[in-house]
Amino acid sequence: MTNLSPTLKLAIDLISRPSVTPEDAGCQEVMIQRLERLGFHVESMPFGEVKNFYAKRGSSGPNLCFAGHTDVVPTGPEEEWKVPPFAPEIVDGMLYGRGAADMKGSLAAMVTAVENFVTEHPDHKGQISFLITSDEEGPFVDGTTRVVDALMARNETVDWCIVGEPSSTNTLGDIIKNGRRGSFSGNLTIHGKQGHVAYPHLAENPIHLAAPALAELSNTHWDDGNEFFPPTSFQVSNIQAGTGATNVVPGKLNTQFNFRFSSELDFDTLKERVIEILDKHQLRYDVEWTYNGLPFLTRPGELVDAITTAVQDTVGITPELSTSGGTSDGRFIAKMGTQVVELGPINATIHQLNECVDAQSLNQLSDIYQGILTNLFANTSQA
Amino acid sequence: MTNLSPTLKLAIDLISRPSVTPEDAGCQEVMIQRLERLGFHVESMPFGEVKNFYAKRGSSGPNLCFAGHTDVVPTGPEEEWKVPPFAPEIVDGMLYGRGAADMKGSLAAMVTAVENFVTEHPDHKGQISFLITSDEEGPFVDGTTRVVDALMARNETVDWCIVGEPSSTNTLGDIIKNGRRGSFSGNLTIHGKQGHVAYPHLAENPIHLAAPALAELSNTHWDDGNEFFPPTSFQVSNIQAGTGATNVVPGKLNTQFNFRFSSELDFDTLKERVIEILDKHQLRYDVEWTYNGLPFLTRPGELVDAITTAVQDTVGITPELSTSGGTSDGRFIAKMGTQVVELGPINATIHQLNECVDAQSLNQLSDIYQGILTNLFANTSQA
Ligand SMILES: [Zn+2]
Ligand SMILES: [Zn+2]
Repeated sequence: MTNLSPTLKLAIDLISRPSVTPEDAGCQEVMIQRLERLGFHVESMPFGEVKNFYAKRGSSGPNLCFAGHTDVVPTGPEEEWKVPPFAPEIVDGMLYGRGAADMKGSLAAMVTAVENFVTEHPDHKGQISFLITSDEEGPFVDGTTRVVDALMARNETVDWCIVGEPSSTNTLGDIIKNGRRGSFSGNLTIHGKQGHVAYPHLAENPIHLAAPALAELSNTHWDDGNEFFPPTSFQVSNIQAGTGATNVVPGKLNTQFNFRFSSELDFDTLKERVIEILDKHQLRYDVEWTYNGLPFLTRPGELVDAITTAVQDTVGITPELSTSGGTSDGRFIAKMGTQVVELGPINATIHQLNECVDAQSLNQLSDIYQGILTNLFANTSQA
Repeated sequence: MTNLSPTLKLAIDLISRPSVTPEDAGCQEVMIQRLERLGFHVESMPFGEVKNFYAKRGSSGPNLCFAGHTDVVPTGPEEEWKVPPFAPEIVDGMLYGRGAADMKGSLAAMVTAVENFVTEHPDHKGQISFLITSDEEGPFVDGTTRVVDALMARNETVDWCIVGEPSSTNTLGDIIKNGRRGSFSGNLTIHGKQGHVAYPHLAENPIHLAAPALAELSNTHWDDGNEFFPPTSFQVSNIQAGTGATNVVPGKLNTQFNFRFSSELDFDTLKERVIEILDKHQLRYDVEWTYNGLPFLTRPGELVDAITTAVQDTVGITPELSTSGGTSDGRFIAKMGTQVVELGPINATIHQLNECVDAQSLNQLSDIYQGILTNLFANTSQA
């Protein structure tokens, strides 16, 4: 262990703590101690059983926030791991353990980046902050969204945010996420009238009624997307009707669908268009909507430039901007008007058995985060 | 009990025997003793665990067969019956008990009708037969279909058949069934490719693929039916896809459908037309077919005339011909080239709690059956 970099030592310390959502298992305390030593002002902000903290250094100028989560998804069968998931180890240059890639490696890189930067620039420009939760992988009710509400209530400003989610695909820094699509789901029940297949005129088959509407919903072109977003997509995830008996016309059909939508559209517009199609097919139905989040987008500008330059300087490649993939806590932070970008290690093994990350890439990630701070906040008059 | 007619006494005896499919519980033995006393030649024809018998009186001329079943469907919760289902009782003129309407009342009426007719016409024309099974309500594998195969193997001819199924709707004899639609089912699996809703381009959603094909199948006009049959009908009875998770695109969709088809169409033609539609939609699919029976049709003629006259003479109404409703053992008997008609009591309570039948209507049913025998087989030279 003595040969390991501070970033890897800290990553191993964090991964050793079995912080399956909503547990934090002491991870935040480790981070807090390191940040307090650097002069950060730290606020614990627990909600329900979820631990969160917000920490800040500096009192004026733009606020750059490092955001992330200490919780991890369950390990699956531990005996199928090549190293125990909470006893991390480096094997052939890869650091194995639950959370290595998502996202305790990033948390360690953030802390050491800030340590190095503050040591070099104790009187840096701007404000550096951390927004850390233990509820990103779970119900995301008492985590980032509650902290953001509290910060907004006191008019705290966060100008820029780097979320440590594993954005890279083939090599560190090849992709940064400068936005995410919006997401919402519908739970749709289509009513018919139960009966016997031998007497179809006495029944109303909800499968027959639903099929043309589902066909139209599936084939609808919702938008073209735009420069930053792929076209809005509609997917039916579940459908069920019938008792199992082959001679009964079922009384109702239940189906669930999900939208991933671009910044060209919004929840209300899509909801209206779905209802229009259902009504056009003269269906009797109930629908419950679950709203998962607005799309957000960080356009190229000062933050993206600082990140791009730091990646180029550290690993010699130019990152590609992307808005694809699932939701993240970035959507909550974006509500503050914050420019949010996700940048972290390769995501190939996240949420899987034998989650791992290239050990050297965590040291490079720390250098990239430090480079971003330097590009934005180095006090050049001091240098 | 001493005031009851022979038909009601026999009906009560039969209903008292708890002959839930495939049990016969001694019912056939009771019938056999009565028929042997009249000079019937009786053959037991058990197959597997199913009791069947074929009995015949007379050796030349047209063969009129009374067909039916001694088995009954389960009772459901016995405590919800107003009389115990196997302890029949007449309450307010209605005979209650499992099988009262379907079809032990008819069996009793057939036996007493034949007793009365043979007593009056010991040297009747033609041949009178009975084909009785204890497997009509169950898997119908070892019942009527096996007996028919055995009769066909020895070139036994059955010209006319009266099945005692409860055909009447509002009043005894208002409807007789002179045919039934054909029936078959399909079990269809449509293959897609499982994935995450956030990455729809990597998945193939089988619900989206299936919807337009199901819409087309539901809306297809298969035929116009004809004078005797309603148009062929297609009904989807079950549909299922998805794991329950709202963020997963399922890998496959399973659905079951059923055809009830007129004598204008056949199994092979319909199968071909379904496959044509599935192929047109470029689906990857598996389909298993279950063939339940050909349509059959008895056109107006000597048998229908004899029945119509007997109903008019007994209850003063003219029965309507119908081919609607589910399948019955008539479809197996029709394979012999037999003209088959179903005529029995009101079917309002069959397969339900508190199954019952108007007691007086069973006496009238016996008179109708006897009238048919008289119309077809009375030896007028003797009269
Ligand atoms: Zn994560
Ligand atoms: Zn029956």
